[in-house]
Amino acid sequence: MSDLSYPKSKTNKVNRLGERGKYDCKTVHEIIASSPVLHVSFNSSPEDFPVILPMIGKLGSFENPSADLSEPLDLYLHGYVSSRIMNLARASSRESSSLKVCVCATKVDGLVLSLTPNSHSMNYRSSVVFGTASLVTELDEKLYAMRLITNGVLTGRYEGTRIPPDGAEMSSTQILRVSIESASAKVRAGEPGDYDKDLKQEELLDRVWTGVIPMYTTYGDPQPSHYNRVKEVPEYITNYVKETGDAEREYALTAIAKGDDETA
Amino acid sequence: MSDLSYPKSKTNKVNRLGERGKYDCKTVHEIIASSPVLHVSFNSSPEDFPVILPMIGKLGSFENPSADLSEPLDLYLHGYVSSRIMNLARASSRESSSLKVCVCATKVDGLVLSLTPNSHSMNYRSSVVFGTASLVTELDEKLYAMRLITNGVLTGRYEGTRIPPDGAEMSSTQILRVSIESASAKVRAGEPGDYDKDLKQEELLDRVWTGVIPMYTTYGDPQPSHYNRVKEVPEYITNYVKETGDAEREYALTAIAKGDDETA
Repeated sequence: MSDLSYPKSKTNKVNRLGERGKYDCKTVHEIIASSPVLHVSFNSSPEDFPVILPMIGKLGSFENPSADLSEPLDLYLHGYVSSRIMNLARASSRESSSLKVCVCATKVDGLVLSLTPNSHSMNYRSSVVFGTASLVTELDEKLYAMRLITNGVLTGRYEGTRIPPDGAEMSSTQILRVSIESASAKVRAGEPGDYDKDLKQEELLDRVWTGVIPMYTTYGDPQPSHYNRVKEVPEYITNYVKETGDAEREYALTAIAKGDDETA
Repeated sequence: MSDLSYPKSKTNKVNRLGERGKYDCKTVHEIIASSPVLHVSFNSSPEDFPVILPMIGKLGSFENPSADLSEPLDLYLHGYVSSRIMNLARASSRESSSLKVCVCATKVDGLVLSLTPNSHSMNYRSSVVFGTASLVTELDEKLYAMRLITNGVLTGRYEGTRIPPDGAEMSSTQILRVSIESASAKVRAGEPGDYDKDLKQEELLDRVWTGVIPMYTTYGDPQPSHYNRVKEVPEYITNYVKETGDAEREYALTAIAKGDDETA
């Protein structure tokens, strides 16, 4: 099942530096799954500016809950019942139309410093997903999504809290399900890429430091709230903090050793 | 000059949890200035999905280069001459129309863990800017923007490289200038906010760990390229890595002590 890919189309094709484009579900989905925040774009009206909201969201399949990241999945976004995007999704559904959204996740893995300003770059991973957003109305699916999202933010957290959410909590929470129609990822890894014309200049090579500054998200020590009574931080939290932090750092460092496909 | 704010309007008003909304130039601009990557949304046609691109961009004023972040500024975005957004901007300009964009920057400062799944949150800072994008055609302004962007990524880097960029480099690089029409920021800081109904449950308080896991970007040790000859990493780079990393960590930790305005 690891070979499933999104078909290339006008919508999702990576034009610039196409060698960096990735279309397989696993790559596209992993970047989204490991991003704490997603950027969601929609149009409130054709005359207005497009709008971007930062939202929390996770990939899953209510129909096929054991599906992994290499399989077809929906994207569940968490929000408030009266927020603008939820109102738009509600209105679209009443008009039997669909709310088109674009969702993007980006992770910056390093600053790539080359000999000339214009050859500078970053190591990064980004995924862009295009789809239609609908309100989730069935309680079972909403609860599925709440668990998915809570455990997506911190593995094991849902079961570590007071569950299930009560009726008032679930009616003030809204979940959007994005049916993904198209998607792609773009990944840059490796060293700086300088042009031959600059690599031949001895004076330049002797003067300008080139290389990569790795960047990664660090999780600090958990800080208890003033009303916390649980003296020891639970193991599922310390494990998550350690494993996720280690994986982020590891990725940023190993990305530098990977080859890049093109200059800059 | 520190009191300048973007006027509240239908476009930029923070509706949900309005107390978290900020409109002053300084807050809005600082979040953008400290974000390594920006998410830029635009429409390629009214029928298509909105599109989000991750781009590198920095705030500045070509007319008033000494302006600081509390003053009115333009947003300069860096891209490739043949990319889709640049082609759209070029086409808009030929038709004497303007390309409407939304640009969003988000920094996640911590995972906020409360007693119930639905009260979970994140500490974060996000800025959303609405404006019209035009291609920069004058070489002086393009060079101004290249310096702004390069030094925005790493203070002092422009002067540390081979400058100025040559003609071929500048013709393959395109700069978009976004004239900001409206903008706002949203900031969540502080501890978890649980509801009284849950804070009264002794069993829950005894069982569920609550608090914040700080998150921040760490800059690792600079890794030289295989063709680097400069043995010692220049001081402007080590200073930047140290100062920026320290500031990120400091913000995430002090954000926890700040009060939040509302539950969740």
